[in-house]
Order: sequence, then structure tokens, then C-alpha cells
Amino acid sequence: MSKGTVVLAYSGGLDTSCILVWLKEEGYDVITYLANIGQEEDFDAAKKKAESLGAKKVFIEDLRAEFVEEFIWPSVQANAIYEDRYLLGTSVARPCIARRQVQIARQQGAQFVSHGATGKGNDQVRFELTCYAMYPEVKIIAPWRIPEFYNRFRGRKDLMEYAEKHGIPVPVTPKAPWSMDANLMHISYESGILENPKNHAPVNLYLMTKNPEDTCESPDVLEIHFTKGVPVKVINVKDGQSKDTPLGIFSYLNEIGGRHGVGRIDIVENRFIGMKSRGIYETPGGTILYHAHLDIETFTMDREVRRIKQGLGIKFSEMVYNGFWYSPECDFVRHCIDKSQENVEGKVQLSVFKGQVYILGRESPRSLYNEELVSMDVQGDYDPCDASGFIKINAVRLREHHRLQGEASSNR
Amino acid sequence: MSKGTVVLAYSGGLDTSCILVWLKEEGYDVITYLANIGQEEDFDAAKKKAESLGAKKVFIEDLRAEFVEEFIWPSVQANAIYEDRYLLGTSVARPCIARRQVQIARQQGAQFVSHGATGKGNDQVRFELTCYAMYPEVKIIAPWRIPEFYNRFRGRKDLMEYAEKHGIPVPVTPKAPWSMDANLMHISYESGILENPKNHAPVNLYLMTKNPEDTCESPDVLEIHFTKGVPVKVINVKDGQSKDTPLGIFSYLNEIGGRHGVGRIDIVENRFIGMKSRGIYETPGGTILYHAHLDIETFTMDREVRRIKQGLGIKFSEMVYNGFWYSPECDFVRHCIDKSQENVEGKVQLSVFKGQVYILGRESPRSLYNEELVSMDVQGDYDPCDASGFIKINAVRLREHHRLQGEASSNR
Amino acid sequence: MSKGTVVLAYSGGLDTSCILVWLKEEGYDVITYLANIGQEEDFDAAKKKAESLGAKKVFIEDLRAEFVEEFIWPSVQANAIYEDRYLLGTSVARPCIARRQVQIARQQGAQFVSHGATGKGNDQVRFELTCYAMYPEVKIIAPWRIPEFYNRFRGRKDLMEYAEKHGIPVPVTPKAPWSMDANLMHISYESGILENPKNHAPVNLYLMTKNPEDTCESPDVLEIHFTKGVPVKVINVKDGQSKDTPLGIFSYLNEIGGRHGVGRIDIVENRFIGMKSRGIYETPGGTILYHAHLDIETFTMDREVRRIKQGLGIKFSEMVYNGFWYSPECDFVRHCIDKSQENVEGKVQLSVFKGQVYILGRESPRSLYNEELVSMDVQGDYDPCDASGFIKINAVRLREHHRLQGEASSNR
Amino acid sequence: MSKGTVVLAYSGGLDTSCILVWLKEEGYDVITYLANIGQEEDFDAAKKKAESLGAKKVFIEDLRAEFVEEFIWPSVQANAIYEDRYLLGTSVARPCIARRQVQIARQQGAQFVSHGATGKGNDQVRFELTCYAMYPEVKIIAPWRIPEFYNRFRGRKDLMEYAEKHGIPVPVTPKAPWSMDANLMHISYESGILENPKNHAPVNLYLMTKNPEDTCESPDVLEIHFTKGVPVKVINVKDGQSKDTPLGIFSYLNEIGGRHGVGRIDIVENRFIGMKSRGIYETPGGTILYHAHLDIETFTMDREVRRIKQGLGIKFSEMVYNGFWYSPECDFVRHCIDKSQENVEGKVQLSVFKGQVYILGRESPRSLYNEELVSMDVQGDYDPCDASGFIKINAVRLREHHRLQGEASSNR
Repeated sequence: MSKGTVVLAYSGGLDTSCILVWLKEEGYDVITYLANIGQEEDFDAAKKKAESLGAKKVFIEDLRAEFVEEFIWPSVQANAIYEDRYLLGTSVARPCIARRQVQIARQQGAQFVSHGATGKGNDQVRFELTCYAMYPEVKIIAPWRIPEFYNRFRGRKDLMEYAEKHGIPVPVTPKAPWSMDANLMHISYESGILENPKNHAPVNLYLMTKNPEDTCESPDVLEIHFTKGVPVKVINVKDGQSKDTPLGIFSYLNEIGGRHGVGRIDIVENRFIGMKSRGIYETPGGTILYHAHLDIETFTMDREVRRIKQGLGIKFSEMVYNGFWYSPECDFVRHCIDKSQENVEGKVQLSVFKGQVYILGRESPRSLYNEELVSMDVQGDYDPCDASGFIKINAVRLREHHRLQGEASSNR
Repeated sequence: MSKGTVVLAYSGGLDTSCILVWLKEEGYDVITYLANIGQEEDFDAAKKKAESLGAKKVFIEDLRAEFVEEFIWPSVQANAIYEDRYLLGTSVARPCIARRQVQIARQQGAQFVSHGATGKGNDQVRFELTCYAMYPEVKIIAPWRIPEFYNRFRGRKDLMEYAEKHGIPVPVTPKAPWSMDANLMHISYESGILENPKNHAPVNLYLMTKNPEDTCESPDVLEIHFTKGVPVKVINVKDGQSKDTPLGIFSYLNEIGGRHGVGRIDIVENRFIGMKSRGIYETPGGTILYHAHLDIETFTMDREVRRIKQGLGIKFSEMVYNGFWYSPECDFVRHCIDKSQENVEGKVQLSVFKGQVYILGRESPRSLYNEELVSMDVQGDYDPCDASGFIKINAVRLREHHRLQGEASSNR
Repeated sequence: MSKGTVVLAYSGGLDTSCILVWLKEEGYDVITYLANIGQEEDFDAAKKKAESLGAKKVFIEDLRAEFVEEFIWPSVQANAIYEDRYLLGTSVARPCIARRQVQIARQQGAQFVSHGATGKGNDQVRFELTCYAMYPEVKIIAPWRIPEFYNRFRGRKDLMEYAEKHGIPVPVTPKAPWSMDANLMHISYESGILENPKNHAPVNLYLMTKNPEDTCESPDVLEIHFTKGVPVKVINVKDGQSKDTPLGIFSYLNEIGGRHGVGRIDIVENRFIGMKSRGIYETPGGTILYHAHLDIETFTMDREVRRIKQGLGIKFSEMVYNGFWYSPECDFVRHCIDKSQENVEGKVQLSVFKGQVYILGRESPRSLYNEELVSMDVQGDYDPCDASGFIKINAVRLREHHRLQGEASSNR
Repeated sequence: MSKGTVVLAYSGGLDTSCILVWLKEEGYDVITYLANIGQEEDFDAAKKKAESLGAKKVFIEDLRAEFVEEFIWPSVQANAIYEDRYLLGTSVARPCIARRQVQIARQQGAQFVSHGATGKGNDQVRFELTCYAMYPEVKIIAPWRIPEFYNRFRGRKDLMEYAEKHGIPVPVTPKAPWSMDANLMHISYESGILENPKNHAPVNLYLMTKNPEDTCESPDVLEIHFTKGVPVKVINVKDGQSKDTPLGIFSYLNEIGGRHGVGRIDIVENRFIGMKSRGIYETPGGTILYHAHLDIETFTMDREVRRIKQGLGIKFSEMVYNGFWYSPECDFVRHCIDKSQENVEGKVQLSVFKGQVYILGRESPRSLYNEELVSMDVQGDYDPCDASGFIKINAVRLREHHRLQGEASSNR
């Protein structure tokens, strides 16, 4: 008698293969689900592997386009960045993956979902909050938080033994001494030898970006067009290449950014569960877009709107990092940020070179930049005398404060 | 009969030389004051020039050390950055310069101060708010906001003619088609051909940093030591060079940053007076410190303290940009930020290469990073089962929201 | 030859009558405009007076309904309150008045607008920013900031003499030793004997509300219905009276609040121009709505949305106080706040008694309140064990902090 | 063989008496601890009861003075208020109680602490986060979250039976159909018949405050003196009574507030664990102080400092509500707020009448209020012309925005 059906987020790797078999052992029917969000993967092989291990159904879902349009684009609009540095490549992928998982679970009548995320990380939270938000009655099986599971599989060696015993094909190449997570937006590296925060990252770590020491000696110059805060076209000024679909644009920016070694960071960050962790990330296309969007946004958005929106963007980033993409507050903030982007339109020229993105210039039909007003050579519609009054009135408060301090000190 | 004594912030250039003579013409006694805040300048020549033009006294003040310690260091602690990009090199220099000007004015019994800042810019505000805050009774003469002055000098040609007529030495080299402002922290470029925001900056613009295309092909690796959020030592790992005074550290970081082309930005920003302007900045040492401090801060500071401090840092940056360094709110925020830095201690290793700063690793005796706690290989003092409860409770609110939406849609 | 046409915001009082005549003297054609925003006023008499003083046209505009719907309602949605106490009764009226003034000016081809606000207050700013925002080319004549005017009229005595000389009817009753400003939302009192912040307000000051010592000895109980954060109906539970138009609702709440002495405050506040001032306000209906809206909002709005919205409401209040109702940032924030009110629906019962508003209970079809979930008697869909994990994970960070402090102290 | 020693927070009531016996049954040695934080209680009787039930030691600790000085006073400085209404009377008591509990546990060598808080509330979080923060290795026994306990005691009836069986004296008076929590600062009421949010509170509910309908017909007028944002003296203007110790001041304000029915609220609030709950609170003295402190603070604090401090106060309130009194962020914010109070000095006169607090006037030697500057009758050191420039410059941005919109619409 089956305990019920589980939709398992399956990667094809050793961990989730063991989980698949273990879930069966525990009496569940298992449906595997593998999302294609742009990672390098042999999806056919993964499918066959899952079937051979006893999955009742196997779903391989290409989510790349919706990942870009519904998850990366809002993050670009928000200038989303966690703790001033991390562009949230993993964080935005999780709700995209979990949403589809929940849809499959509902559609297949599965009461359970399962995943291979560890018990110390952020991803378990991101996955599960999405599941609970979209399918409140769902039951979640997180083996790495179940004592019978994690006490049985205390290390890779235990998994390997289990795999051999249960006919799970084991990897032939030795595992890198760190773990990684890849998608269209970025690759993250952590754990293993990276856990010591003073250890430098090995030079051969990075897979999406070339080492800046080895990149080509001349920049690529791009022109990125934005409408409502979202890129709608990218043109390579050198060779005229151009892309205009979301997936096409983002993939092309990854290619260019990767070629020039753009978007590598090595940080210590604060996880939602309260511990600090060290992560290394490479986000080539996302880094280019971050800079380009900041530029066109400041060019077209009113100063005070920008100030408020900046605060909303910081909140958005924290929510997304913590796993609250599907929450009333994140819905609300996304709506507000989207509203702020109405006039964020125009094009930015930038060059990409040796790990760096340089903004070169910008144009917009909706800019609030007024060349005549700001010019040092012409007066424009501006009377410099007004500035005297402006400064004097701004000084009223400061002079009062000084007066009080003077009184205070003379009374001592 | 003199109208009184003016302390004029004098640069030695054409504008303030004309102002000096014009103030005398208007009946003032003029004391000139030239602050050395690290700009390239022939201070002796400027002194002689001022004397020859009739300055009653000439003050040349070396403010470099106090500029670093009292203005740049607090900005480093704050991770001060305006509108996500500008490191405030000019903004922090103005209160430093104006403070000394006001001290001289008080000491010399001068009722007036004067400067050559334009009527459309931020600097007039920064200068004058500092003056009013520290010397509330002072009277400020801002010729570029006085109609008789600015109507008489409508362009450089008028200044040149006036100079020739009054024996003011005129520059022999043609003026660059933009204006610049230099100090120890940065050089800014704006106006002229840069006013069109789509024009690319000329390649020969930059004076502090080499063009990344021309910089050397191997990185410098630095180790920067921090105490209380402030750098106390920098060591070049390659050659063992080391600096440990504030001015020594900052100058050395400028040298290394300049050599590798670090810290160039081209932005459109929002001035306090309400217009957008385009500015190009190079801040080599400041950029290195920005990255290094961010890293050691996140490594040593509690997550929630960091979140609050980040908000204070944004406010601080706006205040400083707008000219409110000497204000009760900026005093307050500086105090709070300083408090937050108590544990920001340790060292950061980074490499500087081709315009980019790469963090390589960090160490600290006061870090909140706990390698055992975060490790994927050992459990540490952590029970993964707790995370289930944590997630479930965080989901309570999300599930309630979903319930309500479900009811709402089923009632339709 | 006329200098042009001025639309003067005319109150019918001594000041603006003198301004009317003075403007004519200065060579302008004057159109007077008097907005009915609910103040007690003999509008016919004011009209005749203006005509008799030479106004070329006289506009008397009933703005009461639009004042409630377009200005008070958004403030209710925002829980708008300045510096934790002031409900912004004057601040929200100014853009309403100035908007119509500008419309008349455009329609009548007038290049000028004028008003009688003083040079030290907030109202000049609120009027003029609205004018500039909606009619950027307009020229503003603010006599109380024009030296020829204010030096000529140094006190009330000068105005009286001028009035007599120019056939302006002078008030026969002596002026109260304070000034006041009244509209549908509130009356404010300031200046004169109130300028000393320790002087108590005279008992006979208040005009909209009865002294709580003299109000009736039994409460009124109201039920207020909200849709999208805005009141749509009020019912008096005692006598069944009911109102359902915006103006009807608000006027009725004023009546009830006034009868019970609700909404009196005596505060020192910070003006936009940098000085502190003392103001006394009575806002009977607004105070009732403030409490009722807070209640229904917290009942129906998600906690985290509320937190973000609370921050937006504070910003909104500052903008409105400072005169930026018509600004891109205020448009943006109003839009966001409006979005947040989608589910703010339901009814609140409250009693009004002796200066106080007591919330008694609330109901809503869209509440997030779940009686079963929160009950101490039934478990609902909630597992108390989850709370242990929730607390443990929240403690991870705190325990780490303690560990570090312990290490720090043991190293001393 | 004992499982170890538990320090149990003991109230003397049925629940914690059963817990005491149950813990013994489970094999623990139990030390009971009862904090006197101002609640009505027969402490001697509670002591005897605990001893008779087998407590190995009994601690009765009078924490009233430290509760006022170390917990209520910082909250007054912060104007602490949760979700715009709740003055946090329970929230600030919890860390005060738990701190002493942990001190006793350490001192007595107890590895365990226990409490009777339920599994759905905030108090469990507040207690336990304090314990973990101050005694990270402590083990917490929360019976209401332990299935064996809560399944055994499913209602009051089960507790009564258990009590009878184990010789625990049972209450003779029937329990009120709600639960309450009392301390020096407030009494809270919730649960039972109050769980339905539309039910009105019964008239006989309140214990600290008289019903405003029954209070005396003339106000009390108080003068409260503040130093560094904290009350140092209260004088009753009518009868000259005066108090000048923290506990004396706060108790007296409770007496006056209670006599006039001040500080009753009925709210729905958002718990940290994600559910909405309905609470009724009466906070007589705290409400008076809230109003008085707001007044003296705005009178003496710079506008922009106040704005920043207001934001910090909101964060402080959330932290305290959620149980993070002992956290690095709360330490940090308390420090910042304390710093902001340096000049918050002076006295406030107010009247207390029929449930309401009316500010009458205020004085301070350190006020930033400048009567001459703000006066409508004298000019002071202020030039009204400056306001024109101030307004014009503030309008630059608004006019630009209008220009852009005009272009946008004319292009349509």
C-alpha cells in the first residue's frame, strides 16, 4: 500500500538519486521533476536514470523563458542585490522551480513534494515557502532534515555505498571539493575547501566566466535598449549582432560577460537561518544588466521617486533572498517597483572588458535630464539668485542648532 | 573705507583670481585661502599670485591628513555611496575645506567669506551650509550668484579680458573642454562636451588612473587591516611594502588603484538643487577601500545590525552629498555608524587588476562566521529538524493569505 | 497699460483685501478666487466685497466634495500623520485650493497668481509648489515676501490705515489674539499669544469641538464601513442615522466628533523652512477616521505589507506637509498606498465619548484574522512543536553573538 | 536519578502548578521562580504553594525598579509603539523576567528552564530568545509544545483533575472567560470570548483603569520633568504632590491615569508567529508618558534627527514585540536612541481627563524653539525673500517632471 505520491525535485545527481530510491523504500510513489533553468545538464540521461530507478513519471520542464521574463526581469527592475553584493541568482531560481513542482503535484494529485536541499541552507526555505504559499495543504519531505535519513547518510561514502547496493549509477569523476549550483543567471560555489573564508578560490573554479587575466585584449561595446525598466534589445556595436527576445538577450549578455570575465564575487553573506556563509558567484549577464539598468533608471527617474524605490528594492532583495517571492509583501513591492519603471526607457552604451562594465553614455526620449538647464554655459530657465534663498533657508535649522549649542557651552 | 574683510577660497586659477580683484574693486579687503587636500597644484606659485593681486594675507593650509582621518575614514565606515554609484569624493572635501575657511575668518575677524562655486551646482550648498553651521553670523559672497558679477562675466572670454586688464596672469595652455575638480580622494569631470550624456568620455580625460587597456598584465595583491571599521595597515603581498598612517595608506591605495585603472565611473546623478547632471569620476583608493570595508564589515557584523546600519549609511550619503556634513542629523548618524564599527576588525586580501578589485579572502578575531556551524560536513551545534519548524511558522502567514485569496476567488 | 492679470487667492479678510487693492495700484488686473473648502464664510458678502474693490472677475468655487474625495480620502488610506500627531488638515487643503487657482489662471489667460500667505510659514510653499508643478511658467506674487509690501505694512495698524484710505471695509470686531485657518477637515490656531509654547490655549479657542468637560454624558456608537480603505457608509447605532456620500460621511463625523470634543491637539511641530512652531488643531471627523481606518487596516492587511505601507505613509505625510502633493514621488506613493488598500474592507464599531474614540469591534469578509487558528481552545491547523524550531533558528544568530562576546571577554 | 534541575517561571496559578508537579513526575528537580513586576499577587501564598508542591527552592524576586528603569524607560525614550497602537507592556516585561530566570539558573547550576507560555503566542518567543541569548547552552522545556503534555491536558478540566489528584489547590472562583496578563505597565486581556473580534469587551473587564463614564468630573493637571528623554519628576499641579524616583513616578502616573480611565485600547495585532490576534490593553501611566515624551522630544530635537530616530523607534518596537530585546540589533538601536535623547530635557504640562491626555504647554532650557524667529509679529533673524529662492529651487524638479509629461502627452 503506497503512502502516497511524492513529486521529487530531481537533479540527476547522486543525492537526489539516492533520495528517489529511499522514498520508494519508505513506501511512496515517486514522480521526478527536473527543471531546465539553463544549467548544463544531459536531460535525456537524467530522464532515463530516473525511470530506471523506478520513478513513476518523469517531468523535464524547460523553464528558461519564464525564468528570464518572470523572475530575472523583475529583479533587474528592482536593481536587486543582497547585502550590497549578491545578485540573487540562486534565490530567484528557487520560486521558479518550486512553482512548477507544485503545479505538477496538484495536477498529478500528489500530496507530497520533496527536495534534496540541506538543512542549513537558504534553499530549503525558498523551496518550501513557495510550496506552502501556492499549495498550503502540501506535505513536504526534506530528507536532509529527517534523522533516519541524515543519520544513515553521514557522508558521501554512505551515499556511494547505498547507490552501489541499489543499482544507482555512481559518478565516475571525483567530486570537486566544493559544491555548486548553476542556472541561466549564475553559478554559485560554496562548501568544502571554500568553507574557510580566508582560502582563496582555486583558479579553475569558474565555469561561466573566463579568468580576466586570460580574456581578450579589446572590449565589446554593447547598446542595451530598455522599455519599462526591462531590456528589450541588445546590439553589439562592433559587429552589429542583435538580440530582442528576453531569453536571447540574457543568453547573449552571459556570452559577452563570460568572455570578458565579468561578474565574479567572493563574499561572506548572512543566511536567513542566522548563520554566515561564504559564497562565490559568477553572474556575467546579470552584472552587465545591473549596471545598465542603474544607469538608465537614474537618467529617467525623478530623484525622490528613486530614493523611495531604492528602499523598496532593498526590501525586495531581502524578501527574495529569504524565500518570500510568493508572499503578499513581495507581490506588493513588485507591483510598486513595476509602477516606478513606467518611464525607464532608453538606451545605454557600455563596454565590457577584463571583468569590468563601463557605462559610456545614454539616451532616452523620457529623460528628466535637461542639458540646457544644467549647462555651465547657458543659463536655461534658472535664476542663480534663487540658490541663495534655498541655501539660507536650509541653513535656518543648522544655525538654530548652533545657537543652542553655543548657549549650552556658555552655560557650563 | 573698506566694506570689511573677506576670506576667499582661492584656487590660483582664472576664476578666483578675477574674483579676488573684483572683490577688491568692490571695496573689500581680501584674505585668500588655499587648501591642500591632495590636488596637484603649485602652492608657492598660487601664493605669489594671490599676493601680487593684492591679497592682504594668504593662507595655504595642508589639510590632507585631517581630510583622510576626519572625512574619508567616516565615509569608509559608512560605505558611503550616493545613488548606488558615486563615492562622494567632492562632497566630503567641501566641509573639510570650508571648516578651515571659517576658522580663518573667525580668527582674522573677517565677517565675509567668498568662493568661486557656480550657482547651479552642489558645491555652493556644501560650502555655505558648512559656513552657516559653524559661523552663523557670517556673510557669504557668491559672485556667480550676483547679477552684477555674472552678467559682466558671461563667459571665459570676459574673464580673460578682465584678467588682462587687471594684470592677472592668464593660463597659457588652452582650457580643456570640460571642468574638473581634484583632491586626494578623486577627480571629477563635468560640463563642456560632457554635458551631452550620450557623448563618451575622451580617452585622455583621466588623470589619476591609467586606462585599463594599458595597465600592467599582472595583479597587485593587497592585505588591508581594519580596526573599528577603519584601515590601519596595508601590505602589498607581492613586494612586502606596507603603510600604516592614514595618509600613507590612502595615498598608497591611490597609487595601486591608479596603476590598475580602478574606480572610473560615468554617471548621471541628481543634484540637491533638483537637476540631473552628468559626472565622470575616478576614485582609485576609495574604490578599493569600499570593497574591502564591505567585506570585513559583513564578515564581522551581525546581520540585523548590518541591515539597520545600511539604511543609516544611505541616509549619511544623501546628507553628505547635499552638504549637511555639519548638521545635527549627520553628527547623530556618524555617531551611530561609528558605534556599529566596534567589532569591524580583521584583514582582507584582495587583488587589483585591470580596473577591478577582487576580494580573495578574509580573517578576523571578531568574526561571527562559524566554520563548524555552517559546514556541510559536520553538524556543529545545530539541529536540522529545527529548520522545519522555522519554515512552517514562516509559512503560517503565507498560507493564511492564500486561504483568503481562495475564498475571495470562490466567492466570485 | 496693465502689467498683466493676477488670480488672487482671496479670503475676504483684511489682508487679502489690501493685497487686492495694492495689486491694482501696482498695475495688475486682479481676478479674485475664493475656495469653499468647508470653512464658515459669507461667500456672497466676500464676492460683493471683492467686486467693490475692483476685482475684474470673482470666482467662488465649492471644492468641498473634491476636497473630501481626492485629498482627505487618500490621507485616510495613508493613516497620514505628521510627526506622530498632526493630521495634516491644512496641508491637504492647500493643493486642493491651489489646483483650482491654477486652472482658473490658465483658463483666464492670467500669467500671475498671488496669495496672502506669510513668508515664514508652510503654506506659501504648499501653494507655490502646486502652482509651479501644474503651471510651470506661472509667475507668483507673494506680497509678504516683497520688501516694498512688507516694509509698508509692518503690522495690523498699517493695514487698517490703508484699508480706510482705500475704502476697504474694516472688521468691526477686534481680532482674536491668534490666527486661525479653517476648513472642512480642521481648524488650526497659531501665532499671537500662542507663540509662547508654555502658554495654555484659552478655553474659548476651539470652534469645531466642544470642551470635553461640557460634552454629553453618554457616548455615540458608530459603525463605519470601508471599501478599499475608504469609508463608504457611517451608521449611528443609537439612532440609526446613516450617511453614504463622501461629503455626507465626513460632515457627519465632524458633527459627532465635535459634539464629543474629539480631536484636539496642542503641539510643537517642525516647519519645512526649518523652524519649530506651535500649533493647536481640532480635527474631529479626521480623528475618528484615523482610528477606524487603523483598525480595519490591521485587521485585513498582511503584517509585512502593513510594515512597508506604514513606511510609505510616513513618507507621504512628510511630502504632504512640505507641500509636495503634486510631485512625482507623491503620485508614486499614493499609487502604492492605494494598491495596498485593495483588501481593506469591512466595518468597525466604535464609541465616541469625552474627547476619545474607542474601538469596540470589527468585522470583514476579507480579514486575515483566523479565529480557529489563533484560538487557545482549539488547535486549528497549527502544530505547536513548529514553534520550537522557529525559536531555535531565530536564536542561532543570538547565540553566535553571545559566543563572540564570551570569547572577546575571555581574551581580555 | 534526577534528569537535572529546572528553573520554572512560576505564577502560582493552576497551569504552572501542574507543570511543577509534572516536571517532578518526569524526573526533574524543580526550582520555582516568581518575578514581582508589579502584578497583584499574594507572593507569600505562592511561595508556600510552590514549596508544598515540592519545589526544591523558591525564588520570589522584586524586579519592579529594574523593570521601570531598564525596560520601561528605554521604551519611553523610543516612543515605542507596535503597529501604531500597542505600547508593548507585555513585550518589555518578558526579557526582564527571563533575564533573572537565567541568572538564577546559572547561579544554581540548572541546565534547564521552563515556562507555561502557550505554543501560539509571542511570549514563548520572548522568553526563550532571552534565555538563548544570555545562556546559549540552556535547555528549554516548554510543556505546551510537548505532545505528551498538551495531549494529556487538553483543557482546563484535565488540569483540574490532575490538580485534585496531586494535591494541587484548585482555584475556588470560576475563571474569567478570557485570559489576562498583568504587570506594572499594563494589563492585557485576550482569548475566550474576546477571540471573536467583533465582540465588544465586557464593561467589567478592566482592572487598572476606571470606566471613563464613571471617572471624576475634573481633570488632574500634571507637570512631568524630563532629563535625557526620561522622566525625573512628576508634580500634580492641583495638590502639589510630587514623585521623583522611577518607580514612584511610574506608579503615580498609573494611579492618575487609572483614576481617569486613560490608556484603554482594543486592537487586532500581528503576532511574530504569523497570525493575527485580538488584544485589549490598558496602560494608564505608559499612555501619559507616551504623550508627554512625544511632546518634549519634538520640542527639543532637531527635525531631521527626529525623522531618523522615529524610524529607529519603529524598528525598536518591532524587535521588542518579537522578543529580540537581547540581540545585537536591539543593543545597537537602544544605544542610538539613547544618544538622540541627550537634549531631550524640560517639562511638559498636561491634563488627564476622561480617558484622554491633553498637552497644555512645555518649557525647556534646551529647546530649538525660537519664539522670535517664528513670530508673525517680529522678523527675527530671517529674510522672507529667501523663501522665494527656496521654493523656486524646490520647484526645479517638479517643473522638469511637468515638462516631460507635457512632451509625453504631446507626442501621443
